[in-house]
Amino acid sequence: MTIGQTHLFTPGPTPIPEAVRRAMNVAAEDHRAPGFGALATEITAGLREILRMDGGNVFLFPGSGSAAWEAAITNTLNPGDRVLMARHGHFSVLWAQMAERLGLDVELIDVAWGAGCPVKEIERRLGADKDDSIKAVFVTHNETATGVTSDVAAVRRALDMSFHDALLFVDGVSSIGSIEFRMADWGVDLAVTGSQKGLMCPAGLGILGVSDKAMAAAKTATMRRAYFEFADMVNLQTEGFFPYTPPIPLLHGMRAAINLLQTEGMDNVIARHARMATGVRAAVQAWGLEMVAEHPTLYSNTVTAIRTPIHIDAREVIAIAHDELGASFGGGLGRLAGRVFRVGHLGWVNEGSLTGAVSMAEMALWRAGVDIELGAGIAAAQRYWSDGKRRDRPRVVESTPIAAE
Amino acid sequence: MTIGQTHLFTPGPTPIPEAVRRAMNVAAEDHRAPGFGALATEITAGLREILRMDGGNVFLFPGSGSAAWEAAITNTLNPGDRVLMARHGHFSVLWAQMAERLGLDVELIDVAWGAGCPVKEIERRLGADKDDSIKAVFVTHNETATGVTSDVAAVRRALDMSFHDALLFVDGVSSIGSIEFRMADWGVDLAVTGSQKGLMCPAGLGILGVSDKAMAAAKTATMRRAYFEFADMVNLQTEGFFPYTPPIPLLHGMRAAINLLQTEGMDNVIARHARMATGVRAAVQAWGLEMVAEHPTLYSNTVTAIRTPIHIDAREVIAIAHDELGASFGGGLGRLAGRVFRVGHLGWVNEGSLTGAVSMAEMALWRAGVDIELGAGIAAAQRYWSDGKRRDRPRVVESTPIAAE
Amino acid sequence: MTIGQTHLFTPGPTPIPEAVRRAMNVAAEDHRAPGFGALATEITAGLREILRMDGGNVFLFPGSGSAAWEAAITNTLNPGDRVLMARHGHFSVLWAQMAERLGLDVELIDVAWGAGCPVKEIERRLGADKDDSIKAVFVTHNETATGVTSDVAAVRRALDMSFHDALLFVDGVSSIGSIEFRMADWGVDLAVTGSQKGLMCPAGLGILGVSDKAMAAAKTATMRRAYFEFADMVNLQTEGFFPYTPPIPLLHGMRAAINLLQTEGMDNVIARHARMATGVRAAVQAWGLEMVAEHPTLYSNTVTAIRTPIHIDAREVIAIAHDELGASFGGGLGRLAGRVFRVGHLGWVNEGSLTGAVSMAEMALWRAGVDIELGAGIAAAQRYWSDGKRRDRPRVVESTPIAAE
Amino acid sequence: MTIGQTHLFTPGPTPIPEAVRRAMNVAAEDHRAPGFGALATEITAGLREILRMDGGNVFLFPGSGSAAWEAAITNTLNPGDRVLMARHGHFSVLWAQMAERLGLDVELIDVAWGAGCPVKEIERRLGADKDDSIKAVFVTHNETATGVTSDVAAVRRALDMSFHDALLFVDGVSSIGSIEFRMADWGVDLAVTGSQKGLMCPAGLGILGVSDKAMAAAKTATMRRAYFEFADMVNLQTEGFFPYTPPIPLLHGMRAAINLLQTEGMDNVIARHARMATGVRAAVQAWGLEMVAEHPTLYSNTVTAIRTPIHIDAREVIAIAHDELGASFGGGLGRLAGRVFRVGHLGWVNEGSLTGAVSMAEMALWRAGVDIELGAGIAAAQRYWSDGKRRDRPRVVESTPIAAE
Repeated sequence: MTIGQTHLFTPGPTPIPEAVRRAMNVAAEDHRAPGFGALATEITAGLREILRMDGGNVFLFPGSGSAAWEAAITNTLNPGDRVLMARHGHFSVLWAQMAERLGLDVELIDVAWGAGCPVKEIERRLGADKDDSIKAVFVTHNETATGVTSDVAAVRRALDMSFHDALLFVDGVSSIGSIEFRMADWGVDLAVTGSQKGLMCPAGLGILGVSDKAMAAAKTATMRRAYFEFADMVNLQTEGFFPYTPPIPLLHGMRAAINLLQTEGMDNVIARHARMATGVRAAVQAWGLEMVAEHPTLYSNTVTAIRTPIHIDAREVIAIAHDELGASFGGGLGRLAGRVFRVGHLGWVNEGSLTGAVSMAEMALWRAGVDIELGAGIAAAQRYWSDGKRRDRPRVVESTPIAAE
Repeated sequence: MTIGQTHLFTPGPTPIPEAVRRAMNVAAEDHRAPGFGALATEITAGLREILRMDGGNVFLFPGSGSAAWEAAITNTLNPGDRVLMARHGHFSVLWAQMAERLGLDVELIDVAWGAGCPVKEIERRLGADKDDSIKAVFVTHNETATGVTSDVAAVRRALDMSFHDALLFVDGVSSIGSIEFRMADWGVDLAVTGSQKGLMCPAGLGILGVSDKAMAAAKTATMRRAYFEFADMVNLQTEGFFPYTPPIPLLHGMRAAINLLQTEGMDNVIARHARMATGVRAAVQAWGLEMVAEHPTLYSNTVTAIRTPIHIDAREVIAIAHDELGASFGGGLGRLAGRVFRVGHLGWVNEGSLTGAVSMAEMALWRAGVDIELGAGIAAAQRYWSDGKRRDRPRVVESTPIAAE
Repeated sequence: MTIGQTHLFTPGPTPIPEAVRRAMNVAAEDHRAPGFGALATEITAGLREILRMDGGNVFLFPGSGSAAWEAAITNTLNPGDRVLMARHGHFSVLWAQMAERLGLDVELIDVAWGAGCPVKEIERRLGADKDDSIKAVFVTHNETATGVTSDVAAVRRALDMSFHDALLFVDGVSSIGSIEFRMADWGVDLAVTGSQKGLMCPAGLGILGVSDKAMAAAKTATMRRAYFEFADMVNLQTEGFFPYTPPIPLLHGMRAAINLLQTEGMDNVIARHARMATGVRAAVQAWGLEMVAEHPTLYSNTVTAIRTPIHIDAREVIAIAHDELGASFGGGLGRLAGRVFRVGHLGWVNEGSLTGAVSMAEMALWRAGVDIELGAGIAAAQRYWSDGKRRDRPRVVESTPIAAE
Repeated sequence: MTIGQTHLFTPGPTPIPEAVRRAMNVAAEDHRAPGFGALATEITAGLREILRMDGGNVFLFPGSGSAAWEAAITNTLNPGDRVLMARHGHFSVLWAQMAERLGLDVELIDVAWGAGCPVKEIERRLGADKDDSIKAVFVTHNETATGVTSDVAAVRRALDMSFHDALLFVDGVSSIGSIEFRMADWGVDLAVTGSQKGLMCPAGLGILGVSDKAMAAAKTATMRRAYFEFADMVNLQTEGFFPYTPPIPLLHGMRAAINLLQTEGMDNVIARHARMATGVRAAVQAWGLEMVAEHPTLYSNTVTAIRTPIHIDAREVIAIAHDELGASFGGGLGRLAGRVFRVGHLGWVNEGSLTGAVSMAEMALWRAGVDIELGAGIAAAQRYWSDGKRRDRPRVVESTPIAAE
């Protein structure tokens, strides 16, 4: 048993806002009662705004983000279809594996873990694909395993420049709701996310934005599917009814979470994530540690993957944080296991949260034997976040009434 | 807005027990923290007891019960496999539809809605299937749409008598955890349920019991699958880790719900459901209404589907209950729409709950214009439940201390 | 452990509405943060509407309703002051006892338990009190122990007709928020209630409406007081700060509860309670049982106290309901112990709730050996509530989409 | 609206542990049902252990800690009784004020705010009181306003050395459950606390430990009382029934909180608080700021009150923390308003929590214009907490299974 509060700094699930938690504390409910449908229609309307869609459809599949991946593939592609994708981190690897399992002909581009989506190479291959044999390009917008954000708009430009008709699939699990995502502007056909990251809910809903072009493809796609059938869920956006019993508390939570994002305003949400991430990176730099992301243009504003020095097992850092501080950080995944720990800075976070994250990471690193100076990293983050905020003259503040305990 | 308490008498989702509701009120949690796995291993151990398994494996798929259907099929069968199943209600129709969508060669036996699984006919067909071309038999243990419980053990005997090797799939969504279910004794190979019925949680977990024989079949089955892959989930039972982020609050709820069932004892749970159901049926009889179930041997102890007289739309009864009494009953599904309403009597129910259910149904029937006498049905139920419980001499009861408000 | 849902039909605490329960599910909070005060100012503004005040002040004392009784007395009266009050049930007895403990000279009028406040006799005594030696008249608006509502307006008229200056104290614990209460029109000086009855929250806040006249009296009153000092709490209504740490979850609950009452509208709330109560009384009559209230003009619309036949211990009825049905009814208090059980029909109740209450009470009575016919009472209630609501022709109702489980 | 998580570092209310929060999420309940009493008897038994009582009684008054103060005074003293007490902070001032309001003859010893209870002077006055005219000595064990812990055992010795019979009252609101408290060993007669500090619940229960000697005094004490009457509550410890409706969710929370303390073990709880406090004080020293507590022997292990430099309004620091970081610190009270801010480090806290507290306080101080170096204070705290915890060789850690999102 952890004594005292737990501190969650994983890149998902992310902290559940109080308003979301309260919204989920519901009794069992008749999901076929009149009025129930409004819950899902409000959610899909809100998601359309967050995804910045124009036309198309939003679906909510009870399941994890992986479920939405599968729904995207099985509804729009045919067995044996050739798809193009890069592998540059654990989650892109898993996505490719899924595509293969489902019977696609996956053309892989392997780049370094820490690199972004290789747009030039994709452009080259699309250009070479004169007969449009590539049916889809898959892009991992934000590699949660490496803390790398790729340039989806550039992939769209590559498609357009080649006059290529392939569908554009985007894994936005750890980007949507936190960093800029423009489904319509970028011509994304299938945008996948889950409920437990930028949407600040528990896991349990796979979310899928589908363009009109993808909806059309779904009409003729012959891949086998049943649970994930678009046709069954097509009335969700208009009437709010699910083809099976939905996870009702989660729907209430999702509505509340979307409301928080809308109240703050997506532009402010995005700016806040940038600001939070920059402070965390200032700390990493002060520690003299390396990030997995190869170049500043790739730095993710939702998760930072940090390499531990060669003789220090990153799992030790994570274990110390957990056992001695009550804090959870993300581990290195796949080939990065033991080499990397990850700080999530997405969702319902603010400077206070991340001040704690950086302080605790710092202490765990030091205790694990990493050669850093205590206070150095947090000071760097504090300086970044505080820049321009120091008062030059005291403000007069009113006292609140005084009272007993 | 409904003024006052809502009263939920649908056959799922069922009322969430207070202990389950409390257990689900959790903060976000690191699902890769040491110790987290115990949550799932306790759940699978408990489910094994509830399913009365011997060997095999239990899987929990984030999704609805339909997700577990799909997992069962795609992991153990091959494209084009011939399967035998009866359709005798809305949910068996949907299951057959799924089987077809997934590419099986479905041999259908259509019987009346209200009939049970046609064991004799199944036996006949299995006997005629000399070359074992039938790869699986699908049985809907409890048709939630018609309130009919079928005889799974008899289907097993039919298989055994024919020395037939087909897998036995059972849809136990509205039976498991409430009425007798014996996976090992009955030789069930794939037992499907969801979290929102007898397991008294919100929807969101598809549960699948898999026999050793089915596990072996999964090794060679060639149907396409990814999200539902058994191999990915095989460590759930031993180590408790999911292949993707699970719906954490629901896992906490499931553990609490299983604990309630175990504390009561499954034999007591089953006896309670029988007793509850019999009282409800006494009311139906007193009203002079017909049940959809064709014969008393088929009566379900978890749900009763009741026909309204020919000139009365059952939807009107349901609407009155909802709008005027704050109560939810189940509607008629598929071809029974408007002809039937359904009373759920499964899960965390007792005589108090169902006294309310019967009283409210009675009042809604009367208001809808059905020719019944107010008080008649509830009196019949009260008499059944009270039989043998009348005191012949007063008991002396201690007063509790008296106090102010 | 009760198996299955519990059913709460006590006259307080009353069922907590879902919206209130959710509102109370809060993390710890800084009660001196900017903005926190709005919580209490919204509550006091809402309570002023519910109490139908004009001028004066509303205070919220952390404590039970009894705490508000004590605050009312100690802030406005002087040691040895003569006060006039009737005893006609357990709670008026307790109130008189408190008045004596606090050093008042209590002039008691004892009437039958089941009678109302004896207005004529009060009028006589006030008329005889030529030198205004009576400093206050205490009226129990709704005797929760007997189910009797007294005529507060008539007591005001008696005071006015005698040109008597005494303060008018009213115990509205089980009336305020449920049945008509008009603090300004009736000239009530101190109106007491608690959070756990018509206000549908857990116990923990004693609520006090104070007229301007009573506020003026508080300026010179010399009775010793500290925790309950009005002066410390006088900014609650304007700024929302408490003189000590308040029970924060309860404040959130109270705000939500007041919002429910305002959304329904107090006139509708009052009409609903009348309608609920009349149905319950129809059942009592059909059982052939007597109410404690002596006359129909006294019947309370929030609680009905029912006598069991002489040879039946009412505690047995209550124990059967609890042990066999999971239902809680109120017991007989003080001299009515064992002779009476009470049905609460206040707060977040509707026809559905009380259909259950009546059915369960009926079954418990029968099992205890009371000579009633099963179904008789509930039928009478059903007939009352259904009167004029039977459809003469069927309505056409739309089907909702059909789905899997 | 605060964006992102709020961070609570006030010295009460303190963070509610998850287990406590869950326990409080209850439906309305019949507080006179059989079995309900066990809730309060378990709580009182647990509190007896936490208070380290031997004999005597524990009472729970619905209300705040101030309510328990009043109960202690009114039940054991007589009007005009002479009591001796020191004032050395806001809460001792309020307590003295209450004593005067309730009609005691309060002999005050005013010492500096920041000093502890003046034991020598108390000893001198007790020695001089040859006719035992002092009926009680009041000691504020932990002055929440100044962060000073006084030596209760020394006051007991002073009483014993004078063979003085006065009752010993102790305000333990911010000490009990967090730092050493030994009611029996120290001969404390009345120990007061509230639910919202070391007991980690919302406010709403005033808790009172009463020695046998104080129980005896209550038999003859003539001060007026009603709501707080010991005699009404005397069965709480044995049977668990309250004299009025208790705040039920809070009782469930209290039971869970006590269980957490017992599981950790009170000696460990006390050691943890010492360790947490020392780290915070290391930061204060590194900032070069002064504590209100005059001497290291007085430093409180539950709250640290920190002076801001003369030209900096402490309210500005608090406002910046709140508005820019989402963090709440305690303010200066009474004469310390604007001069002091306070960090609570009691209850469900650990190194992770306080790492955050120190980092955020540091950043708020800097932004307010205080002349400190960012990183300096947190580094000092980190060094203290990490001392002796640095690994000299890496540990081998097992990977957890890898999964999708």
